[in-house]
Amino acid sequence: MPIPPANLYPPFNIVRLSHVVFGVTDLAASKAFYVDLLGLQVTDEDDDHVYLRAMEERGHHCVVLRRSAEANVRSLAFKVYDEGELDKAHDWFRAKGHDVGWVERPYQGRTLRTHDCFGMPIELYFQMERLPPIHQKYALYKGVKPLRIDHFNVFASDVDQAVAFYNEIGFRVTEYTEDEETGRLWAAWTHRKGGVHDIAFTNGSGPRLHHTAFWVPTPLNIIDLLDLMATTGYLANIERGPGRHGISNAFFLYIRDPDGHRIEIYCSDYQTVDPDLEPIRWDLKDPQRQTLWGAPAPRSWFEEGSLFQGIDPVAATLKATPIVAP
Amino acid sequence: MPIPPANLYPPFNIVRLSHVVFGVTDLAASKAFYVDLLGLQVTDEDDDHVYLRAMEERGHHCVVLRRSAEANVRSLAFKVYDEGELDKAHDWFRAKGHDVGWVERPYQGRTLRTHDCFGMPIELYFQMERLPPIHQKYALYKGVKPLRIDHFNVFASDVDQAVAFYNEIGFRVTEYTEDEETGRLWAAWTHRKGGVHDIAFTNGSGPRLHHTAFWVPTPLNIIDLLDLMATTGYLANIERGPGRHGISNAFFLYIRDPDGHRIEIYCSDYQTVDPDLEPIRWDLKDPQRQTLWGAPAPRSWFEEGSLFQGIDPVAATLKATPIVAP
Amino acid sequence: MPIPPANLYPPFNIVRLSHVVFGVTDLAASKAFYVDLLGLQVTDEDDDHVYLRAMEERGHHCVVLRRSAEANVRSLAFKVYDEGELDKAHDWFRAKGHDVGWVERPYQGRTLRTHDCFGMPIELYFQMERLPPIHQKYALYKGVKPLRIDHFNVFASDVDQAVAFYNEIGFRVTEYTEDEETGRLWAAWTHRKGGVHDIAFTNGSGPRLHHTAFWVPTPLNIIDLLDLMATTGYLANIERGPGRHGISNAFFLYIRDPDGHRIEIYCSDYQTVDPDLEPIRWDLKDPQRQTLWGAPAPRSWFEEGSLFQGIDPVAATLKATPIVAP
Amino acid sequence: MPIPPANLYPPFNIVRLSHVVFGVTDLAASKAFYVDLLGLQVTDEDDDHVYLRAMEERGHHCVVLRRSAEANVRSLAFKVYDEGELDKAHDWFRAKGHDVGWVERPYQGRTLRTHDCFGMPIELYFQMERLPPIHQKYALYKGVKPLRIDHFNVFASDVDQAVAFYNEIGFRVTEYTEDEETGRLWAAWTHRKGGVHDIAFTNGSGPRLHHTAFWVPTPLNIIDLLDLMATTGYLANIERGPGRHGISNAFFLYIRDPDGHRIEIYCSDYQTVDPDLEPIRWDLKDPQRQTLWGAPAPRSWFEEGSLFQGIDPVAATLKATPIVAP
Repeated sequence: MPIPPANLYPPFNIVRLSHVVFGVTDLAASKAFYVDLLGLQVTDEDDDHVYLRAMEERGHHCVVLRRSAEANVRSLAFKVYDEGELDKAHDWFRAKGHDVGWVERPYQGRTLRTHDCFGMPIELYFQMERLPPIHQKYALYKGVKPLRIDHFNVFASDVDQAVAFYNEIGFRVTEYTEDEETGRLWAAWTHRKGGVHDIAFTNGSGPRLHHTAFWVPTPLNIIDLLDLMATTGYLANIERGPGRHGISNAFFLYIRDPDGHRIEIYCSDYQTVDPDLEPIRWDLKDPQRQTLWGAPAPRSWFEEGSLFQGIDPVAATLKATPIVAP
Repeated sequence: MPIPPANLYPPFNIVRLSHVVFGVTDLAASKAFYVDLLGLQVTDEDDDHVYLRAMEERGHHCVVLRRSAEANVRSLAFKVYDEGELDKAHDWFRAKGHDVGWVERPYQGRTLRTHDCFGMPIELYFQMERLPPIHQKYALYKGVKPLRIDHFNVFASDVDQAVAFYNEIGFRVTEYTEDEETGRLWAAWTHRKGGVHDIAFTNGSGPRLHHTAFWVPTPLNIIDLLDLMATTGYLANIERGPGRHGISNAFFLYIRDPDGHRIEIYCSDYQTVDPDLEPIRWDLKDPQRQTLWGAPAPRSWFEEGSLFQGIDPVAATLKATPIVAP
Repeated sequence: MPIPPANLYPPFNIVRLSHVVFGVTDLAASKAFYVDLLGLQVTDEDDDHVYLRAMEERGHHCVVLRRSAEANVRSLAFKVYDEGELDKAHDWFRAKGHDVGWVERPYQGRTLRTHDCFGMPIELYFQMERLPPIHQKYALYKGVKPLRIDHFNVFASDVDQAVAFYNEIGFRVTEYTEDEETGRLWAAWTHRKGGVHDIAFTNGSGPRLHHTAFWVPTPLNIIDLLDLMATTGYLANIERGPGRHGISNAFFLYIRDPDGHRIEIYCSDYQTVDPDLEPIRWDLKDPQRQTLWGAPAPRSWFEEGSLFQGIDPVAATLKATPIVAP
Repeated sequence: MPIPPANLYPPFNIVRLSHVVFGVTDLAASKAFYVDLLGLQVTDEDDDHVYLRAMEERGHHCVVLRRSAEANVRSLAFKVYDEGELDKAHDWFRAKGHDVGWVERPYQGRTLRTHDCFGMPIELYFQMERLPPIHQKYALYKGVKPLRIDHFNVFASDVDQAVAFYNEIGFRVTEYTEDEETGRLWAAWTHRKGGVHDIAFTNGSGPRLHHTAFWVPTPLNIIDLLDLMATTGYLANIERGPGRHGISNAFFLYIRDPDGHRIEIYCSDYQTVDPDLEPIRWDLKDPQRQTLWGAPAPRSWFEEGSLFQGIDPVAATLKATPIVAP
């Protein structure tokens, strides 16, 4: 199935990914990881929640940690262009037969909860409490100096179906991996905000969250984080990297939080605002698509992901074998 | 005059700045500067023109050097969202009483030539020849490793008027400098593509082009360029920097090409896609707005700019005195 | 007067510069500057002293802050190769007619106090309390991530005389600035430990301490420090830079501590262990010797320095005019 | 066997490692690797040799490529402190029963050829043709921007014996790996010039050359090299890294030249000039000694090395098993 042409006039206007709500089993341990180690800023907290933002964000939160009996993901959230877009989205999802509902979320305006074509819970809102800029309060920078949430990556049982769905609502494919033998998609990167992706899909039992990524200033910040993790008890949380992705051209590191939620630290992709930007095709057999420098990813990186609360994943339909570290 | 609210539904959709056409008096010297020193890539050339692109761009050109009896600027160009937007733009400018015309430009589709509220020539197009990606052809990277054109900055005789005009066609103000005594704008940064600016305006005899900026990977690339310029005969072309702007938070360097056209090398501003992003206000008396680290700019930086061909600049209406290097 | 040939077999063996004792008028303010801002580590402190080391040092201190009624410098200290070298030094200085005395210094073994040819107090020791390595305790790194003390720079009233004296005790000249008209030295850089300098001399009313330098990992750490200083109340403490020195090829920044003691943050000079390394000559008229990129230093940088306690400086004998910022 | 105390007064004075002579089977391919890819500078060449230096070196060569029927190493060379030291070395080696001979080497003065305790060929000289500085000719920098040769690492069949021998001639141990069960040395790093090592020894069939290392400015230059290798046909030449060594704290990359000679690209170790610097002990079972961030080295890195011409390696006496990538 070929990549569909970009839908330049989607039924509603999503601006960008916004935040993730993680169910975490040890709130203090998770806070230590995201705040003391990574350097995200606490914007609010109570006994059961910690709200976090990155250094250049003015919205109230990009991560919500929520105390939970089990590690899981509660929702992936996106910001729309204005209040009216929420109504358009509500009607579109309902017309497609998806469950829709208006939910209350602290620090947010009207929030629409629904799900994607695989039942993955997504929430849309326009209004979130705005905070004063801190990107020039350099005394606050620490850890990996996270600037902003960059993207989600999710396991999808059928990537062709994922692309069809998200393309319809305006996500444009920037790069994709094709299984040459079947002509089917192994993975795809799609964006709204003008970078390589707001959300990517990779073949696997899904829906599960593969990772959430944060943008940092330079590769040296990632090296600093590795040094810090290696000498402060987080050695086992380093999963893969550092390296350069073939796809997206980003310099990357993958780490795992105390519950195993995977976090990517990421910099240096490219601008994709041109509506006629041609997607870049990669062959599933090309190991450089994963790591330009050749090192394959470990098996855990291909197999493990975070469950969405209450959603049982479905096995992937495409059975190709990825190249893993021996 | 306060900053007007962002116009979220402008009469036509400009995606981003696209390219500049420089009139240059010594084509070989200019090519040496942009290609051998800065590292832009030649995409075509003939006796009278050199077409250039930066490393992550897939459009055919971001700079056109054109042999000229006098150093000047022929036009600033912008890309629109699709062909239909060109017609909307044509009609809007004509209805406002601006000259409009369809012009032929090599490697571009239908191109609309018109001017802004000060007579500054601007050109709009949707289609430009697309080239294969080279951002992973690392053997081609050299000089300052320019990734993409980032923004224009122009002298405007009345910045309040400039903001009113560009705001109406969808450019959103991200930061601005206000003269506290008069309440008038000294400078403003406005964007379409999701960074701090596509085009900025600074108080001065105008219209004149203050500078054209290129985005590079890290501050170390700027340091590399300084070392290279200092030891290859370009010492006198270094005008200001390196430094950190208070406004935009960018790490910057200003240099002058062989004709005096000013080029900024730039990295690390922030994402501005939120339609409700609040503009940041700076006081004209705050020297940190120019350089966070305190060093004032030289007088040339405030006074000199490139003329647009055939356009006589008008004196600025605001007579405040900038802080310059002693 | 030409540069004398290196004295490869000096009368005693100095290994490297070791530490400086600063008289400071506000111990808390100085501690905040060196510890909280720069990131030096406290190894001991009492009501009147703070002892500091940098991240890769295992000796007990590289800076001693000492509460003082007046801002001044108490001594510059050097480490010798073993205990026996102290006796050789003692006898050599005494034979030359210099005052010599054994003094008690906390955390140090036997310490010889004497002075150089200008009366500048210097102290020599072999043994200092050794501390466990902390260079891989990455959680301790902060500020500019200072790795080690690198060099002293002092104003000398007669640089030819300084070079003659220090050359005799084994300091080798790596680079020097000559006044072309008189053939006299304007400045000289001399080393023992294999870098561009342990101690440098610059023409001026002396002896006064021009600056003490610390080595940091990369230019980005210097940029980080500038951002931090600019936004935490230390803007006025930034004196010069960042830039690249022609001499030494180092990337530099000059800042002033709360008493005006000048600190250089420094990286990327070159290895000088070859005994036959040829000194590099610079002309006093060449502005690139100061800053490769061309920006002249401010007047304060040429004129201001720290007094040594109880030592009245003598006017410089060479009256050439440096190139200063206009 | 414990680490012997440093011999502070060795029988002759070696200043630093100097150069390696590689036997290469395809001179053009090797030149492309060292010059076009890595960025070493050609100082002379003929049909059978290419002489190379790094950017901050003023001696004529740090690598000699020599056309050869078989890939091998001809000698490791060291610079002594003056001519007289050559005679002392000659007499010392002869008294120990080692073969000694004076050999002619282009661009070098009198050169002593002998061998170490394992028969490994080493050459000593004082005088080498000195070249003008190029470290500020920034137009010449390319590839990984190699600044200087940093160290050799050799497989030794008995590391305790290696340390005893090299310690006697003045090499000081900075770090070492001990097999906890037997109390024997697995590896040791020894220096003359004030860094972590001029020559290191690792347990294995020897003598064989494990690698030759070059110092570069920052980790970003190593990342640049990886990007370049990955996209110019050198992907298979990347063997290990990038990473941070526990031992030496260096940021590293290991690559293989067209003949399999292993090259390390290296930055950021620490200063070791103190004669009383305490060696740092690592346990063979600690995987962070190899890579602070935890990733084990590939098997090839432990097993493969370059033969010295005409020397058959002897099996290692210590049979411990290293931790390798699974």
